[in-house]
Amino acid sequence: MTSRPLPAQLPRTDLTRHRRLREQGSLERADLDAILDAGFVCHLGVVVEGRPLVVPTVYGRDERHLYLHGSVASRSLAGGTPVCVTVTHVDGLVLARSVFEHGVNYRSAVIHGEARKVTDPDEKLEGLRRLTEHATPGQWSYARRPSRKELAATTLLALSLEEASVKIRTGAPDDGDGPDAELGLWAGTLPLTAVWGAPVADPLLPADVPVPGHIARREGTRHG
Amino acid sequence: MTSRPLPAQLPRTDLTRHRRLREQGSLERADLDAILDAGFVCHLGVVVEGRPLVVPTVYGRDERHLYLHGSVASRSLAGGTPVCVTVTHVDGLVLARSVFEHGVNYRSAVIHGEARKVTDPDEKLEGLRRLTEHATPGQWSYARRPSRKELAATTLLALSLEEASVKIRTGAPDDGDGPDAELGLWAGTLPLTAVWGAPVADPLLPADVPVPGHIARREGTRHG
Repeated sequence: MTSRPLPAQLPRTDLTRHRRLREQGSLERADLDAILDAGFVCHLGVVVEGRPLVVPTVYGRDERHLYLHGSVASRSLAGGTPVCVTVTHVDGLVLARSVFEHGVNYRSAVIHGEARKVTDPDEKLEGLRRLTEHATPGQWSYARRPSRKELAATTLLALSLEEASVKIRTGAPDDGDGPDAELGLWAGTLPLTAVWGAPVADPLLPADVPVPGHIARREGTRHG
Repeated sequence: MTSRPLPAQLPRTDLTRHRRLREQGSLERADLDAILDAGFVCHLGVVVEGRPLVVPTVYGRDERHLYLHGSVASRSLAGGTPVCVTVTHVDGLVLARSVFEHGVNYRSAVIHGEARKVTDPDEKLEGLRRLTEHATPGQWSYARRPSRKELAATTLLALSLEEASVKIRTGAPDDGDGPDAELGLWAGTLPLTAVWGAPVADPLLPADVPVPGHIARREGTRHG
């Protein structure tokens, strides 16, 4: 691992080149970072005996790597297995005048690489810390950290953030200045927002245990 | 296509057998249906030159098939290409006493099969109708339907719903009755809910075009 930062522009490769809807493609690393930071669940794709398998899993990150909870796919992940990790935020429906122009406002990052099983205990602990803090900032300091045995029972994958591509669609439908505008139909977007609710205590929890501030203060905030 | 309904139990195959977290697995077709009906964006996995590619796309369905908007992946989808389609709803964070027991409450469906490009114009129109109505009920009757040219320019994929598996996790953390319960830490879940917002009119829309009821009435309703 080097400390040199990754370039601000994502590389244009056979895997990241945008073949379609080019206007939605971004090769800005800042866009990639923002999409990754806004979520905590990704879809991990692997090839198993020639067939694709796509499973949801949680992730965290540092500047150069994504860390994935990998048990689901671990049977398929011998060293150097190619994976594809996709993180998508759905921001709303694009309701055009014509069905043909309908679509979705979204932000999506697709990362290509070879997943590496993290075996060094220190790196694994640090990866798990990042994964835990990514989903719930403040929780690593609050909860009981993994024992040596638990650490050994956890499969953590690392994936370089070097080769990735981003697609973003925002805003109104595209048929507002075409012939369909004459139809007199309503057109616009219907936003979709994910919001954190009120913490629900474990029924087995004694009534006098307070909700810690780092959890309580998320209520009502937006996710994604 | 036959009119015989698919069996209520999903088949246990090499691809759908739950290898991990068996308590979360379901082979009830009703669970699959509910998960598919609750969303409109899936992650489509294909194998391209031996590597996985996972892209988000919209879907609709009938009793036996998923219909997918397929342009993104269409270059990889020659007849009979194996695909994996995953639909995931994230319902919240599971915040246990120990980091090891942390997790996510979610509902996820994984469908395996061979995607077929829909070429028959009638089937394509019907598939697009289902896809449109799945995302926005009422919109097919409201918007301008595809012209013959638009229909030809649309790639629609069909995927049988025969081979699928479901995972569901709900409820409290699992360490409420173990030794970690003595730690005095708060534990529970933090729910995450996606909600439709107020319709946003296209800036190019004349001010006197009303929001149709089928769109207006979604505001404030839950998605997922």
